[in-house]
Amino acid sequence: MQDFIIIGHKAVTTGGFSLNDMPGSAGRMDILCRCINSVFFLSHDMRRDVQAHLLLLGEPNSPRLIRFNGDKLRYLNPDERSAGALIKKALELDNISSHETRSTPGVWVREADLCTLLDEFAKDDRKIFYFREDGKDIRDSSEGIKDGVFVLGDHLGLTEDEEQLVLGMSAGTISVGPLSLHADHCIILIHNELDRFIASKIER
Amino acid sequence: MQDFIIIGHKAVTTGGFSLNDMPGSAGRMDILCRCINSVFFLSHDMRRDVQAHLLLLGEPNSPRLIRFNGDKLRYLNPDERSAGALIKKALELDNISSHETRSTPGVWVREADLCTLLDEFAKDDRKIFYFREDGKDIRDSSEGIKDGVFVLGDHLGLTEDEEQLVLGMSAGTISVGPLSLHADHCIILIHNELDRFIASKIER
Repeated sequence: MQDFIIIGHKAVTTGGFSLNDMPGSAGRMDILCRCINSVFFLSHDMRRDVQAHLLLLGEPNSPRLIRFNGDKLRYLNPDERSAGALIKKALELDNISSHETRSTPGVWVREADLCTLLDEFAKDDRKIFYFREDGKDIRDSSEGIKDGVFVLGDHLGLTEDEEQLVLGMSAGTISVGPLSLHADHCIILIHNELDRFIASKIER
Repeated sequence: MQDFIIIGHKAVTTGGFSLNDMPGSAGRMDILCRCINSVFFLSHDMRRDVQAHLLLLGEPNSPRLIRFNGDKLRYLNPDERSAGALIKKALELDNISSHETRSTPGVWVREADLCTLLDEFAKDDRKIFYFREDGKDIRDSSEGIKDGVFVLGDHLGLTEDEEQLVLGMSAGTISVGPLSLHADHCIILIHNELDRFIASKIER
């Protein structure tokens, strides 16, 4: 299984946001919605063996961690509003604690920060990868990144503290290509590399 | 320059659609909006040497062809609604004919079909590429696809007639990987291949 962590530094942590203004008053929630699309959608199918973890750090109840599990996920369509509606439902729960609560099928929410989440992956011996243009080319790392945990930032990237935290636990820094891309576009390139790796194994 | 043609078979051809219901009553307009994002956005920049041609074939005024030019484009943000708003403004013009009319900076609209558009590219000796899983691997074709014209379908793919038309003028059928992907995801993979090809030329 692959896990994608996407950090929304300004993404609001209340369900009261408007689906009509996700880039504005919802704190660039649109970025997280596009990442959900990239993580899960195939042409006429969905990726099942994959999870997305949205870390929302905006006002007023930061932090909120929303987990989408491909195997259980329902009611998700490819458009931004569809992902936004599931995020909204998760944030609307009134009993959010450090224990996960399911909001809709395949979606859970809790109060947790990046350190907590990365610690959990590290305890499971999962390899954590960080993306930066000066990293190792993903095309030279396709076998190594299988079952990886991939940390991606929003329009603000990662803060210095977050970067130090991730690098301290990271199995490697990966580059998807020569240009700096949006997180949702990076996810497409990671999936493609792994799709090719898995297909090449089957062919052999 | 790269040109991307995306065909929206059900996309409505009136500006009266709602930005709040692009997947539904606007005829999967959300697909075309996500393609616009993929064609133009870099992390903190936009791709300038690229165009998107949206062919809208839904009711009531089909066909409508909307051209987005990266070099001139203004007022576009990454979210679906932003692209949708520019499409809406283009379709709202009341003097749409077979000659292009500019609706907003970098966006033009006219009445034209796929055959007309492909003929124009062919007259300019442009190479037209079609995407299919059984095509030649894009990683073996990166030099060849530079300055290409790429034809992509919506959720319905291409009709048999469209496919015959494209294949008849095509310089090749390309595959981006082992799985069938959404058009906006294919665009990311095409860009990445060309970004890598161009970067490798600069390094030499």
